Amino acid sequence: MTKLTVQALQWTGDALKVLDQRQLPETIAYDVYDDAAGVHDAIATMRVRGAPAIGIAAAYGVVLSAYRHYRASPTQWREKVATDMAMLAQSRPTAVNLFTALATMKTALEQADEQPLVALLACAQGIHADDVAANHRMGELGADIIGHAQGILTHCNTGALATGGYGTALGVIRSVRQRQDVAVFAGETRPWLQGARLTVWELSQEGIPVTLIADSAAAWLMKSGAIDWVIVGADRIAANGDTANKIGTYALAVLARHHQVKLMVVAPTTTIDWSIPSGDGIEIEQRHAQELLPACYHTPDSLVSAWNPVFDVTPAALISAIVTERGVVMMPSAETMENLR
Amino acid sequence: MTKLTVQALQWTGDALKVLDQRQLPETIAYDVYDDAAGVHDAIATMRVRGAPAIGIAAAYGVVLSAYRHYRASPTQWREKVATDMAMLAQSRPTAVNLFTALATMKTALEQADEQPLVALLACAQGIHADDVAANHRMGELGADIIGHAQGILTHCNTGALATGGYGTALGVIRSVRQRQDVAVFAGETRPWLQGARLTVWELSQEGIPVTLIADSAAAWLMKSGAIDWVIVGADRIAANGDTANKIGTYALAVLARHHQVKLMVVAPTTTIDWSIPSGDGIEIEQRHAQELLPACYHTPDSLVSAWNPVFDVTPAALISAIVTERGVVMMPSAETMENLR
Repeated sequence: MTKLTVQALQWTGDALKVLDQRQLPETIAYDVYDDAAGVHDAIATMRVRGAPAIGIAAAYGVVLSAYRHYRASPTQWREKVATDMAMLAQSRPTAVNLFTALATMKTALEQADEQPLVALLACAQGIHADDVAANHRMGELGADIIGHAQGILTHCNTGALATGGYGTALGVIRSVRQRQDVAVFAGETRPWLQGARLTVWELSQEGIPVTLIADSAAAWLMKSGAIDWVIVGADRIAANGDTANKIGTYALAVLARHHQVKLMVVAPTTTIDWSIPSGDGIEIEQRHAQELLPACYHTPDSLVSAWNPVFDVTPAALISAIVTERGVVMMPSAETMENLR
Repeated sequence: MTKLTVQALQWTGDALKVLDQRQLPETIAYDVYDDAAGVHDAIATMRVRGAPAIGIAAAYGVVLSAYRHYRASPTQWREKVATDMAMLAQSRPTAVNLFTALATMKTALEQADEQPLVALLACAQGIHADDVAANHRMGELGADIIGHAQGILTHCNTGALATGGYGTALGVIRSVRQRQDVAVFAGETRPWLQGARLTVWELSQEGIPVTLIADSAAAWLMKSGAIDWVIVGADRIAANGDTANKIGTYALAVLARHHQVKLMVVAPTTTIDWSIPSGDGIEIEQRHAQELLPACYHTPDSLVSAWNPVFDVTPAALISAIVTERGVVMMPSAETMENLR
């Protein structure tokens, strides 16, 4: 397994060490948490972000809860851990991985008997390791498809910072780079600038040169012929392959098609919501107008407002490939997606 | 003529009052200049920006030079004014309007005899008034084409702040608003944020509600059906209608075509460079990577770089209409553009 230079989450043996992503790239600072309340805060304050990373952090939060309460009361500790799990579930509203990880930990908690602390830690570390392994698998599968690309453009941050390690879309870029030279471009990803703050930092930490562009320059970059693939992650994928991802992904998809550039979506199968037949069923979260508006317009009677959707939905017809840890679907549709079930 | 609420440049009788656009929208501050050196600085430091506004400011700078030197030396003042004109020509490298305005003032200077100060002021005020009149004419012509649009998206700032008053693309939006309700959207226009800092301020000053979006959200906005027209200005138009404008315009053009949204370019005929047959001949200025990159990457050995073109070129085939003060060209091409010569 490739050495992980960038690690958002590290288990120290009796605590969780969390890289504070809010301060990147100016400051590299870690916080160490030894109880579930601390992990809750780390998630709620967005020190840790990215759906897989949030789920893994919560799993370790359950371990820390068990460590503390088992030692204090070996007979009644399970109730207190259950309370902490309910608290951890409140840390962020929408990340499905958070709830999946807590459900897995709940099962482990119920089944553990003789050495419950060992069993719970093994479960959390298993969730973490499975995520890293899935990312490596996706990286290799994605790199197999890419072939001899000259240039790749990515959007938002889908790397080690957002996952247990290696990354989804950024994992594919890492795997491609291990095989060949390729020019990597990152969109700055307004309004939160995950590309400018996180993706270029993470790539440079790994020794991979990267060129930052304004999101609005992507079309002109494609016109120049510099890129062959756009590679992005996913927040949610419908049963027909329609993909919700960071705002701006849909624009890149339309622009890519116009310029005969291919679009790859990289996400674990846990991202697929089989209960939603198409992207029309995906609700799009709107964020605060304040993220875009200068401070003088933050008044109720302002004539200036902002429209600030967090995500958009890219129709499957604009996607060349969806890469998961279970395999690749080329030209996704309701029929071809069935191969991943 | 419509009252101009926002005025980047105002002649006070013996000085030029300049709105400091660098401080908008937080601070509304004016600087008053009574000599050509001051006007040179106002342009060079980007207190005033926008090609037409720069040309007008320079014309008033020549008037201020004449006022000063004529009173000091009624026999030898012309040489000193010529020196100031050479200085004003150095204030910004590429704005064609700057050189056009200075050439007009030079002719006026050579022809003026009995009351040279009156003649020079009349010439500068004529340049200013002609620009405002051209903008009003374009506003009405553009509004005639728009018909009953529900929503309009604009990019960068092409308003009163960038011109003598009223604006080009923003002038069309003003004219449409005088006839009917229409939802106005503005892209924030990275990296300089002219949309977020200038366009929404200017529209709100005029009492026009406006909704700001991240540039990357334009495609998703178009998909929602909220807009019928994208309306932009131009920095340079080739003889076949290919149009150089602020980076991101080409992306909007491709996205508009995909969503059956129409694209209007609004610019005076002085923007057309008949010597350039197509957009291939337009050189694109690259700006400093520092405009995009976090400070920690401003080192020569950084693995992180930026690609930061200021403009892009939109092929005429993606433009529905070019609106000038001399008339409108629908579906511009080398043939149809000839009607504007």
